[in-house]
Amino acid sequence: MSRGFYVGRFQPYHNGHQSVLEQMACRVDEIVIGIGSAQISHTLANPFTAGERVLMLIRSLSSLKCPFYVIPLEDVQRNALWVAHVRAMTPPFDTVYSANPLVVQLFTEAGVDVRSPNMHERLTHSGTAIRQRMLDGKAWEHLVPPAVVDVIQEIHGVERLQQIAGSD
Amino acid sequence: MSRGFYVGRFQPYHNGHQSVLEQMACRVDEIVIGIGSAQISHTLANPFTAGERVLMLIRSLSSLKCPFYVIPLEDVQRNALWVAHVRAMTPPFDTVYSANPLVVQLFTEAGVDVRSPNMHERLTHSGTAIRQRMLDGKAWEHLVPPAVVDVIQEIHGVERLQQIAGSD
Amino acid sequence: MSRGFYVGRFQPYHNGHQSVLEQMACRVDEIVIGIGSAQISHTLANPFTAGERVLMLIRSLSSLKCPFYVIPLEDVQRNALWVAHVRAMTPPFDTVYSANPLVVQLFTEAGVDVRSPNMHERLTHSGTAIRQRMLDGKAWEHLVPPAVVDVIQEIHGVERLQQIAGSD
Amino acid sequence: MSRGFYVGRFQPYHNGHQSVLEQMACRVDEIVIGIGSAQISHTLANPFTAGERVLMLIRSLSSLKCPFYVIPLEDVQRNALWVAHVRAMTPPFDTVYSANPLVVQLFTEAGVDVRSPNMHERLTHSGTAIRQRMLDGKAWEHLVPPAVVDVIQEIHGVERLQQIAGSD
Amino acid sequence: MSRGFYVGRFQPYHNGHQSVLEQMACRVDEIVIGIGSAQISHTLANPFTAGERVLMLIRSLSSLKCPFYVIPLEDVQRNALWVAHVRAMTPPFDTVYSANPLVVQLFTEAGVDVRSPNMHERLTHSGTAIRQRMLDGKAWEHLVPPAVVDVIQEIHGVERLQQIAGSD
Amino acid sequence: MSRGFYVGRFQPYHNGHQSVLEQMACRVDEIVIGIGSAQISHTLANPFTAGERVLMLIRSLSSLKCPFYVIPLEDVQRNALWVAHVRAMTPPFDTVYSANPLVVQLFTEAGVDVRSPNMHERLTHSGTAIRQRMLDGKAWEHLVPPAVVDVIQEIHGVERLQQIAGSD
Repeated sequence: MSRGFYVGRFQPYHNGHQSVLEQMACRVDEIVIGIGSAQISHTLANPFTAGERVLMLIRSLSSLKCPFYVIPLEDVQRNALWVAHVRAMTPPFDTVYSANPLVVQLFTEAGVDVRSPNMHERLTHSGTAIRQRMLDGKAWEHLVPPAVVDVIQEIHGVERLQQIAGSD
Repeated sequence: MSRGFYVGRFQPYHNGHQSVLEQMACRVDEIVIGIGSAQISHTLANPFTAGERVLMLIRSLSSLKCPFYVIPLEDVQRNALWVAHVRAMTPPFDTVYSANPLVVQLFTEAGVDVRSPNMHERLTHSGTAIRQRMLDGKAWEHLVPPAVVDVIQEIHGVERLQQIAGSD
Repeated sequence: MSRGFYVGRFQPYHNGHQSVLEQMACRVDEIVIGIGSAQISHTLANPFTAGERVLMLIRSLSSLKCPFYVIPLEDVQRNALWVAHVRAMTPPFDTVYSANPLVVQLFTEAGVDVRSPNMHERLTHSGTAIRQRMLDGKAWEHLVPPAVVDVIQEIHGVERLQQIAGSD
Repeated sequence: MSRGFYVGRFQPYHNGHQSVLEQMACRVDEIVIGIGSAQISHTLANPFTAGERVLMLIRSLSSLKCPFYVIPLEDVQRNALWVAHVRAMTPPFDTVYSANPLVVQLFTEAGVDVRSPNMHERLTHSGTAIRQRMLDGKAWEHLVPPAVVDVIQEIHGVERLQQIAGSD
Repeated sequence: MSRGFYVGRFQPYHNGHQSVLEQMACRVDEIVIGIGSAQISHTLANPFTAGERVLMLIRSLSSLKCPFYVIPLEDVQRNALWVAHVRAMTPPFDTVYSANPLVVQLFTEAGVDVRSPNMHERLTHSGTAIRQRMLDGKAWEHLVPPAVVDVIQEIHGVERLQQIAGSD
Repeated sequence: MSRGFYVGRFQPYHNGHQSVLEQMACRVDEIVIGIGSAQISHTLANPFTAGERVLMLIRSLSSLKCPFYVIPLEDVQRNALWVAHVRAMTPPFDTVYSANPLVVQLFTEAGVDVRSPNMHERLTHSGTAIRQRMLDGKAWEHLVPPAVVDVIQEIHGVERLQQIAGSD
């Protein structure tokens, strides 16, 4: 059985992430999804808690073609320990899907097989763009799965982000 | 929709835990399962990593009658912050099922509804008993779900525990 | 009895803070004053230790019209735990006085009554301005209570700030 | 002006502590009182939060003959850094009053003048004894100042301790 | 070139450690010596600072037959990350010499070659025995290299240990 | 006997550092070299692990005219504790050689004798410049001792830095 690992901060979870996970679902038997910087919330770059991000992921992936595990991962603040941290917190996996340069480097140094999903690089910028649209009062709902719109409305996520931005 | 929270260290996950979760599955719509002391492993009291415990839980609960989320929870080392930590890391829940005195006290002080599962108290001692049986080379397999036996064999869990015990 | 909470970094404590606390003293029976980022010192943005800031506050407030408690608060690095941290470290309070957007958001999410002091927003910029004046060798003494001038002279605070700035 | 430092965990604050502080009040101009292990609460050895302990101290000392500062001190987990930590968190002091062997050693190595209060050693055992009496349902109220009885009743402190003790 | 790794707490460094390192010096080209629990000092089980232990080692090993590196290693509090921590803090090594059961298990799981020095197990008990002899005022000097006697006298190590023991 | 202390991040160790240490070797009997921010690696500003930096130093200093100790120093995140941290982790020293403004301030406040090496200030900028040259594919080898070139090639250090820089 093959298991693939995918990690993101998911602030918020969006269509780009969804696309990568749907690609992965055709190639591996099970997917381990790490929620990075799980301990951070209520900041401009990381407005949502890990629990809120778990909800976004699970509701959006209910019809994914393969089983998946969603694991919040607190930061360890030391890059040289990060791979060991991920491995201790997750079921074992064979392959990492990532276009994040640091993630690629750390897993490669550890001898793990890393593959680039087609569209990731562009996606990493999308989280920033979506949060900016929320701050500016522009439409963002079309950039995320419908379940994510629901979660963010339930938790008053846009209002939280705008309030935190405050006079800064 | 109602969501219930259950937390344990699951060192290892055993029939007592399984029984509580099956009871809960009849009473709530979804279950949030916290894996406590997620960051600890390779000790006599906590031999298994969080990832190994995730595997034990998910494989054992594949036929549970309601959806569930398994969330590793690192310790925060400060009891007064623990409820806030749990809430930040998990989807929201209405009811906690626990017979652990400290868990009951902390959630009660926070105004959360706490209920006692029927058999928990006895169970909290079972983890200790199972680890002792592993150390002594006695049978323990009948005390855990079959999927847990598989996981522990795959990771050479009994050998790990015996090695750690070493000359101490 | 009503108790109000006010928090700042007080780098240094200045006339704006003093004004807010004098306003509060007319409205609540007791004031709890939190010294934020208590563990940080000897940086450009946070030159003074918590102990030095305690001195500034207590000496400046000796004639305040109501009793007050000064509590150094180390950062917890996790916004979702911050309200629980404040509550564990301080006597209980009913009302928070703050114009800091994040403080307002965190206490509001926790269901605590938050009120805006009249002049706070402008004040938050004053700390920065005062430190810049110290660096530039300009007059700053008129912006803080006389007792703060004394404390900063005793600890050679301006020299410390200028030295830290160094060649950076 | 002379300032003296006294530190304890105050779980709870009791007549022995009160006696030491009243002795000190005759010998120094101001007293700095550190609340040790401020971050710990809800355990058998440390049932009360720092904020609760602040209340106990301030209410009991309202008629003390000299000014005092009450400073919660989180543990730093490294004895070699503890004196520097205390100094950074408190106004400067000349003399330490302590009979705690580790506190005496650490301040002595740092070149600080340390004096033994007459009755401290016996007192350090009293906290333990008072908590045991609370657990056993015996009278403890005569061992603490009246204000401490009030605080512990307000926070349901005895019930908390008994609940935490639970089946352990 | 072959490099061997040896780790201990060295509280204090004694003849048993010296014997193991002399054995290793004949078998590898260079030795990396880790000082474990480097951040702990001034406790009954760990009386000496990392810096003091560095001195004990370097002075005792001045005539060792091969080059060596002495690296203080702070604890990471998570066994699953410890091997990655050691590797990040030290020059690379091929072989670990240890009879400590946990060290053996962790490096073995990481695929590192581990060998048992002949006499280690007995030695791990010697540190405890030496500290007990110091506390009891018995002779301990014959159990450590002469340079260690010098270091402990310079730092008043026996007095420190006896003071910390205090009334406990 | 006199011992001098010198600290740097050594990302990487370069000719400027070497020059300062050679100056010091004529003035003190022994040198204690602290590797700052030892726990950080795999970032643009701190690409190399502490172990890799230990190698760079020891190989480059094999012919230094006086004995030296190389001690990795993890950050303590609190400037007010940093001097105590350094002292606990290193053999005792009388004099600090530094042109870093914060290091000078912290040791001066602690009453330690601090001297400025002739060329340090320019050097602190060299680490940044060397990393930029590595990123840009320009020559950098002439700016570091030959042994450092070897270490960086062995660990594929330039490739690591370029990979981490990635699309950022």
